[in-house]
Amino acid sequence: MTAEAPSVSAADGLLARRRRLLGPAYRLLYQDPVHPVRGEGVWLYDADGNAFLDVYNNVPSVGHCHPRVVAALAEQAARLNTHTRYLHETVLDYAEALLATFPDEIGHVMLTCTGSEANDLAVRAARVFTGGTGFIVTRFAYHGVTVAVAEMSPSLGAGVPLGAHVRTVAAPDTFRRTPAEAAAGFEADVRAALADMQRHGIKPAALLFDTVFASDGVFPATGIVDGAVAAMREAGGLYIADEVQAGLARTGSHMWGFERYGIVPDLVTMGKPMGDGHPIAGMAARPEILAEFGERTRYFNTFGGNPVSAAVGLAVLDVVRDEGLMANAARVGAYLADGLRALQQRHPSLGDIRGAGLYVGMEIVEDDAARSPSPARTTRLVNDLRRRGVLVGISGAHANVVKVRPPLPFSTAHADLFLERLDACLGA
Amino acid sequence: MTAEAPSVSAADGLLARRRRLLGPAYRLLYQDPVHPVRGEGVWLYDADGNAFLDVYNNVPSVGHCHPRVVAALAEQAARLNTHTRYLHETVLDYAEALLATFPDEIGHVMLTCTGSEANDLAVRAARVFTGGTGFIVTRFAYHGVTVAVAEMSPSLGAGVPLGAHVRTVAAPDTFRRTPAEAAAGFEADVRAALADMQRHGIKPAALLFDTVFASDGVFPATGIVDGAVAAMREAGGLYIADEVQAGLARTGSHMWGFERYGIVPDLVTMGKPMGDGHPIAGMAARPEILAEFGERTRYFNTFGGNPVSAAVGLAVLDVVRDEGLMANAARVGAYLADGLRALQQRHPSLGDIRGAGLYVGMEIVEDDAARSPSPARTTRLVNDLRRRGVLVGISGAHANVVKVRPPLPFSTAHADLFLERLDACLGA
Repeated sequence: MTAEAPSVSAADGLLARRRRLLGPAYRLLYQDPVHPVRGEGVWLYDADGNAFLDVYNNVPSVGHCHPRVVAALAEQAARLNTHTRYLHETVLDYAEALLATFPDEIGHVMLTCTGSEANDLAVRAARVFTGGTGFIVTRFAYHGVTVAVAEMSPSLGAGVPLGAHVRTVAAPDTFRRTPAEAAAGFEADVRAALADMQRHGIKPAALLFDTVFASDGVFPATGIVDGAVAAMREAGGLYIADEVQAGLARTGSHMWGFERYGIVPDLVTMGKPMGDGHPIAGMAARPEILAEFGERTRYFNTFGGNPVSAAVGLAVLDVVRDEGLMANAARVGAYLADGLRALQQRHPSLGDIRGAGLYVGMEIVEDDAARSPSPARTTRLVNDLRRRGVLVGISGAHANVVKVRPPLPFSTAHADLFLERLDACLGA
Repeated sequence: MTAEAPSVSAADGLLARRRRLLGPAYRLLYQDPVHPVRGEGVWLYDADGNAFLDVYNNVPSVGHCHPRVVAALAEQAARLNTHTRYLHETVLDYAEALLATFPDEIGHVMLTCTGSEANDLAVRAARVFTGGTGFIVTRFAYHGVTVAVAEMSPSLGAGVPLGAHVRTVAAPDTFRRTPAEAAAGFEADVRAALADMQRHGIKPAALLFDTVFASDGVFPATGIVDGAVAAMREAGGLYIADEVQAGLARTGSHMWGFERYGIVPDLVTMGKPMGDGHPIAGMAARPEILAEFGERTRYFNTFGGNPVSAAVGLAVLDVVRDEGLMANAARVGAYLADGLRALQQRHPSLGDIRGAGLYVGMEIVEDDAARSPSPARTTRLVNDLRRRGVLVGISGAHANVVKVRPPLPFSTAHADLFLERLDACLGA
């Protein structure tokens, strides 16, 4: 014991200030929060000059502070920033470029600022088109923070009640079941949820899921959703593909996660990676779905589709194309998965490695026969990696899936560095 | 008749392209839509080089493309853009600067990207704090486009049904009633709505209104809300002040519209003017309102409060202060109102002029004894002004109130120009 005042670190000071100003609902990542002050490519640098390999953030999709995106932002912001109640070419150029990445059946795009707004708009559109109110989502889904989509986001926890017209089904888990069993189970669960809706007099509106089931634990297998989608469509409901996680070239083989299934959705929602950090999101749709919605009501999102956001969105699409980032995601994603599977041979806690391009889930398990989920090991691993300068995240209902989701310019050298530090953490 | 193809103007081509790409729910202002390509201060310039005096847009609050705001945006976007799950000073500096403009009772701010998200978050917070679900809004209110706030936005029209737990009351119209009658009527309507909720077993959550009643027709009188707010508070509900329209120095006498009433709200929502066009919005709160909300759930808005948005928000507050824009709004607003009242003497269709600073509503009426609302005259006037290079908008349940709401650097010279062109249109 000494009479001296306890030393308060800079981070502690920021934490207290944060709690005071932003209130109690904000959370930080890591036991020892990261305090970045600069970003470049796949790297973040903190106030003390430490470098962090970013293996987590899909928002800076084409790399932190990409110069072409920053230039497009600055240039348009200096010239004009208005809204969609005036005519402007750039929003149309962006809409056209975006729609060119979709199958022909998808003909319109509406622009919002956040993925929450995009999913919320899809809920409105699906309700009007179907006349239904029932939504089916997966058991640990996350679709956003508005009233309507928070009540379809069971991963927010018991403090946020699910909507009375919302039903949940297990995600198609391909670790503890074969893909065929997972597909059959997903379909059976959707059919059971539809029967339950019918029993309650609820007309179905849509099946809404993230096309890599990121929040449920990352399940990017293909061939696992056909029956479930067909069941919802037979019941008169729509298929809404949430691409906020999987979308924009990340899966390597396709621009959008739903394309990997070979089924064209009725509505597609997009967000995080579209603006390399700038607030851009949107909903793409089969035109027939929006016909009545457009007659019934106007849609105006003050900032959605403004010329600056549109210029930024276009720049991101240009960079994805010009830098071959989809092919890079395929190539480096495969290299990374191979490396992880090699590590798996030596580290039994790596229960499963599953990925599509640069979206990889590593399931962390106990050493028991059942290979039980190990949230404790997962938390330790993710915080160990953070201390070794590598940023990853956690997902899954049991909080035991490491979410590996770097910016798209991630190279094989970055993958090697990640594998090396992961190996060290797992061996520690 | 000739065999030549009809000439299609550039605007017609853009209109068709817009309809094809963005779908049927988007609307444009004016019979002859404006096609701006550049903005500066209070001016917009179209593709043909025509200048438009912007007397409508509150989003470019400190002037179109303000160089200090653009510089802050470009500088931070080149350095770092992450999110609130890492520590960062700028979001705290912004929160602190913003909260410094509020009364002491308001202690936290949560950041979103749009005013819709801010109002939607207020709905969530009010529900958790009160345990109630009933909301009272004004009869022609607009609070946003999410599922939850669209059903509290009767101005969206009959195509968007009101929520089962939403009640509407007439806005305190001070044109056809004295302010005292308007205040008494507003209170009586709120009490009747509360009684109706009680009869339906609906526990009240909040009274939500725009602090200048912009969408109802612009009613910025003071002394008109006290009884209504007291009635809601007696019933255990909150007072949510929607500052998306009135906020950020526009009313001239105060930073926020609610301050003019001398009543501190429980929740305050903000949006449009905060980022001079950049997507920034937020909710400020009495800390006790957020305590349980923060325990029950985390709040993470991917783009909300990112370092770039925070730097932009700070720059806007700096410009408002350094350029004395609040005092300018008071001074020029008074000058403009005097000029409009002088015009009123010669143009009987100017039924009423009411304003606070640079938020002015001009009610356009018929020549009959009842001074009936004249939507036809209003539409003609607004489109005539547009043809003479002046942009204004329309609001009110009868679409007969001209919304005069220029960027804050509007000068007396700009006011003279507006008055001159308005005079010409009214005389035509």
